[in-house]
Amino acid sequence: MAAAELLLTTSNPVFKAYLLHVAVLGLKMLLMSPLTARQRFKNKIFASPEDTVSMKGAKVKYDHPDIERVRRGHLNDLENITVFFIVALAYLLTNPSPGLAINLFRAYTIARIGHTIVYCVIPLPQPSRFLFWIVGWGITVFMTGSVILKFM
Amino acid sequence: MAAAELLLTTSNPVFKAYLLHVAVLGLKMLLMSPLTARQRFKNKIFASPEDTVSMKGAKVKYDHPDIERVRRGHLNDLENITVFFIVALAYLLTNPSPGLAINLFRAYTIARIGHTIVYCVIPLPQPSRFLFWIVGWGITVFMTGSVILKFM
Amino acid sequence: MAAAELLLTTSNPVFKAYLLHVAVLGLKMLLMSPLTARQRFKNKIFASPEDTVSMKGAKVKYDHPDIERVRRGHLNDLENITVFFIVALAYLLTNPSPGLAINLFRAYTIARIGHTIVYCVIPLPQPSRFLFWIVGWGITVFMTGSVILKFM
Repeated sequence: MAAAELLLTTSNPVFKAYLLHVAVLGLKMLLMSPLTARQRFKNKIFASPEDTVSMKGAKVKYDHPDIERVRRGHLNDLENITVFFIVALAYLLTNPSPGLAINLFRAYTIARIGHTIVYCVIPLPQPSRFLFWIVGWGITVFMTGSVILKFM
Repeated sequence: MAAAELLLTTSNPVFKAYLLHVAVLGLKMLLMSPLTARQRFKNKIFASPEDTVSMKGAKVKYDHPDIERVRRGHLNDLENITVFFIVALAYLLTNPSPGLAINLFRAYTIARIGHTIVYCVIPLPQPSRFLFWIVGWGITVFMTGSVILKFM
Repeated sequence: MAAAELLLTTSNPVFKAYLLHVAVLGLKMLLMSPLTARQRFKNKIFASPEDTVSMKGAKVKYDHPDIERVRRGHLNDLENITVFFIVALAYLLTNPSPGLAINLFRAYTIARIGHTIVYCVIPLPQPSRFLFWIVGWGITVFMTGSVILKFM
């Protein structure tokens, strides 16, 4: 474990791992936009009237199942990953065991990528999506608990 | 007030308070998911067809008032708390008076918990929700102003 | 470029610029709420029944085009700017050229303000919104790539 002043430097392997996983998760979230756009163009269904002007047969609708599925996956990312972004940073400042912290970051990233795949790319029956979701949710709840106990 | 290089260490009481409040707010946001799930199971209404398979009488619908109420509360958290997460960090780097900063964090956290209670747990007439919301909104607007004036 | 330990201090001009742009973007996001409220009061259409009690003729509806337009703009901010908040921080820890980093922050902020204007304030025909969006999206994708290559 590093001295408190050195926790937020790239010589701390936990902070380096945090930055890497944040970038992978950020990229995953950014890729939800082309994933939505692909469904919109395939189905010629858009959210704003100005988007339909230049495409023959394009319509404004809000209930296409394939589009709404990707949008729900994206919203689920917002509900979960934006909390991870900042809670994982707070967690590493509790000076946790590096091995534990880095493996939690890894498990979280894998769980959220798995969640997107079984929800939005190749929809699979439950409980596949629930299992990926609960791993990510449980890790962030554990982190919030560690931070609260440490800094209360 | 701490020297600039020491603002982001846990020996700075403002940073410690920031980490604590971020964890409490993060946990509060994470708990919105079971709060939504509770309403979904109670009303047997889900967002994806694969969620309805194993429960008799379960349906896909998007207009149940109790479910949508919790979802609006969750979205309001996303719109407000994710901004606080990063703006409060920028604000503490303006090296504010510790007493002011810590009390702003406290007031923000209480206001957001209050907002969730009167919106999603025990719905109360307006202006209760508005008052909780405006306290949180006003604090974050004040913080953005302080940061812009300091670093412009 | 600064020594690694000094990247997160306000003597680093890139970090100072980061804090300034985060505050401007945060304020822009916070202003989406009064922008939505303005449309709600103008059209007397609200999301929760308790909001309609004290205004004659007010109704609960979810399909008013002017209100939904502002809400889509706000959600697009959440999908994009919350990723920027943390990815731009990770990016500045790769110790990039200060000139490049500061100009990317500036371009991002201008692009997101432009996106809001042409989507929610003075709706303009496509591709104006697409162009503002793709600049912001491209900058954050570039940043995630830089971080992944550096810390992998």
